[in-house]
Amino acid sequence: MAGQRIVTLTTDFGVVEHYVGAMKGVICGINPAAQLVDITNSVQSFDILDGAIAISQAYSYFPPDTIHLVIVDPGVGSSRRPILVKAGLHIFIAPDNGVLSLVYDREEAVLVRHITADHYFRQPVSNTFHGRDIFAAVAGYLSKGVELAKFGDEITDYVRFAAPKPKQAGANSWKGIVLKIDKFGNLITNISPKDIPQLFQESRPGFKINVGKAEVTGFHSSYAEGTQGEIFAILGSSGFLEISMNRGSAARTAGADKGAEVSVTVS
Amino acid sequence: MAGQRIVTLTTDFGVVEHYVGAMKGVICGINPAAQLVDITNSVQSFDILDGAIAISQAYSYFPPDTIHLVIVDPGVGSSRRPILVKAGLHIFIAPDNGVLSLVYDREEAVLVRHITADHYFRQPVSNTFHGRDIFAAVAGYLSKGVELAKFGDEITDYVRFAAPKPKQAGANSWKGIVLKIDKFGNLITNISPKDIPQLFQESRPGFKINVGKAEVTGFHSSYAEGTQGEIFAILGSSGFLEISMNRGSAARTAGADKGAEVSVTVS
Amino acid sequence: MAGQRIVTLTTDFGVVEHYVGAMKGVICGINPAAQLVDITNSVQSFDILDGAIAISQAYSYFPPDTIHLVIVDPGVGSSRRPILVKAGLHIFIAPDNGVLSLVYDREEAVLVRHITADHYFRQPVSNTFHGRDIFAAVAGYLSKGVELAKFGDEITDYVRFAAPKPKQAGANSWKGIVLKIDKFGNLITNISPKDIPQLFQESRPGFKINVGKAEVTGFHSSYAEGTQGEIFAILGSSGFLEISMNRGSAARTAGADKGAEVSVTVS
Repeated sequence: MAGQRIVTLTTDFGVVEHYVGAMKGVICGINPAAQLVDITNSVQSFDILDGAIAISQAYSYFPPDTIHLVIVDPGVGSSRRPILVKAGLHIFIAPDNGVLSLVYDREEAVLVRHITADHYFRQPVSNTFHGRDIFAAVAGYLSKGVELAKFGDEITDYVRFAAPKPKQAGANSWKGIVLKIDKFGNLITNISPKDIPQLFQESRPGFKINVGKAEVTGFHSSYAEGTQGEIFAILGSSGFLEISMNRGSAARTAGADKGAEVSVTVS
Repeated sequence: MAGQRIVTLTTDFGVVEHYVGAMKGVICGINPAAQLVDITNSVQSFDILDGAIAISQAYSYFPPDTIHLVIVDPGVGSSRRPILVKAGLHIFIAPDNGVLSLVYDREEAVLVRHITADHYFRQPVSNTFHGRDIFAAVAGYLSKGVELAKFGDEITDYVRFAAPKPKQAGANSWKGIVLKIDKFGNLITNISPKDIPQLFQESRPGFKINVGKAEVTGFHSSYAEGTQGEIFAILGSSGFLEISMNRGSAARTAGADKGAEVSVTVS
Repeated sequence: MAGQRIVTLTTDFGVVEHYVGAMKGVICGINPAAQLVDITNSVQSFDILDGAIAISQAYSYFPPDTIHLVIVDPGVGSSRRPILVKAGLHIFIAPDNGVLSLVYDREEAVLVRHITADHYFRQPVSNTFHGRDIFAAVAGYLSKGVELAKFGDEITDYVRFAAPKPKQAGANSWKGIVLKIDKFGNLITNISPKDIPQLFQESRPGFKINVGKAEVTGFHSSYAEGTQGEIFAILGSSGFLEISMNRGSAARTAGADKGAEVSVTVS
């Protein structure tokens, strides 16, 4: 019951305008006891994959029955459906545009409902801000204990995209991409230990990684092992290969942006 | 009582320095049970109208008796008064510089008090941070249930400015301005359905809107209806005409900034 | 007990990625009743002094027994120790890299423990994100009431640095630095009334302050006293000399950055 009351927000509404404040008002207006926790409201505007990464990296640490609002919604006001998802021990409210794809990938038990019970919506429903008028209102009632089944029927044709995976480019070479650049300038790639196991072993073969104008041949187990100015590879906390520097920005030094190609060759 | 404990923050202190943290500490230090909710702390520095817009767009969604701290306070330390306002079902604490003007516009029952009971202030009171020393402290005590009348006497000569309104420029033409540009690049104007009703009707006449270097002749009911690269008009969630793009920045494409003129001609 | 449940965050993880969300999830996952309050998550990346300033300016306003997480941790994964500190009435969790130095300066009773009880950690512990795997987990258990002594033994050789102090440069002259530039463009120096008492007296002698390309000869007691375009000195809310403008950015006008030299001469 106490757990029910935590409502997290992952949105692209930003922290400058009133949008997130209005959503929080709607949730608290319905359930003043809701405990609101921001995951991030700075998902890149309109970028569904960026939102999918953010929620997939954070939700599992919250207690069971936490309600996660995930609003990256360029299709607001169109025919895309609002959905309510029970995935493993967590509950998600989102537009049905694939923003929960990486959650679906991590959970075995996924039940998706099309939210249709419009008596739970804030009226009138605008065409431009369902975050406030539909999603936040549903989160408010859910956090008060309204049962999932009251919001709409199960659907199975929900939208799900495949995350971009690295590709094998030769016998000993792969091509991945930079998924994200974080505040520290770490280049977070889409390459995980499942993709190139030998790169992450303790007895690691020689390797070469090219990204932007950087050529990387060192692999460290902590940022602090890097020498000054060195760009190196590391297994990041997100479970992906990162290209990093110790107390510096690998992104700026390598001149690489989000989406840049990452070539890996192992001897 | 539970509602009393929600305290929202709308300030221009930013999220980088410790200012908002210090204010939250003062509130929690007086009432550890206060539920703090940020509306935004990124109001443009010193911009009272920007703060007035933010609070007016968010407060009404919160439950009755929510306490709203609204601190955009370039006159801190001067003779401008600290005020405590009951407006409709909500309570506001702010400097008396007009930052609540758009709240006054929306509420019929407005009672404004001059906060003078300095035994509720944090001592010593600095000349540069009344957000911490006066406003947050008053919010803390209010959230614990201290009655409004204890903080000071009613005044009627409080500061109130008129929001910038669009002007009729000819028989079928109007001139408004861009009030705000949001994170998505939407140009939020000061033109509402009350100003030019025919522009917002379903059977809409032909029209032309000029802003920056853009000429807009299409009106959509959702962002997703826009075709690629199209700049169009839409009724935004704030109740104002917006100039927008689908998955793109109208502001950047039109080359228009906050304050830019918006010319509307209806056939 | 209620006070125990407030957990503040002061980090350099930023508000864009999921890092802070993951930490909050870990805390709530262990103690769903924890009350999370951000001081700031926008400490300059890797900048231990900047983090030290932020926490030292905010912690004391919170109620006794508040738990303060202070994570600026470029040495994550190296041999630097995680520490748990009782300083005065407050509790701190941080890497042992000096980020609490300015707290140590303000408190007489300081007891520092080396956190070694790894059964309180999230397993497996990554090498790159102890904020999530160690520090947040310890905060969760502490907020549930686990005793301080359970986390590890007292140490006395913890890291502590001296804050940069202004230096006397002549009989009537001093050299300080700009510690920080805030959102308003105020230049916050490291010069306090203890360093140059006569500068802060009511009967102030003539003086000249040079910073960047600005020469300052006026001292005001509130920002609003400044005339348009005037750069002046003021005693800021942080207890330090600030170089400021009324409704404008002193930093931009003076062309001075963080770290810039501040020369003071008193007649």
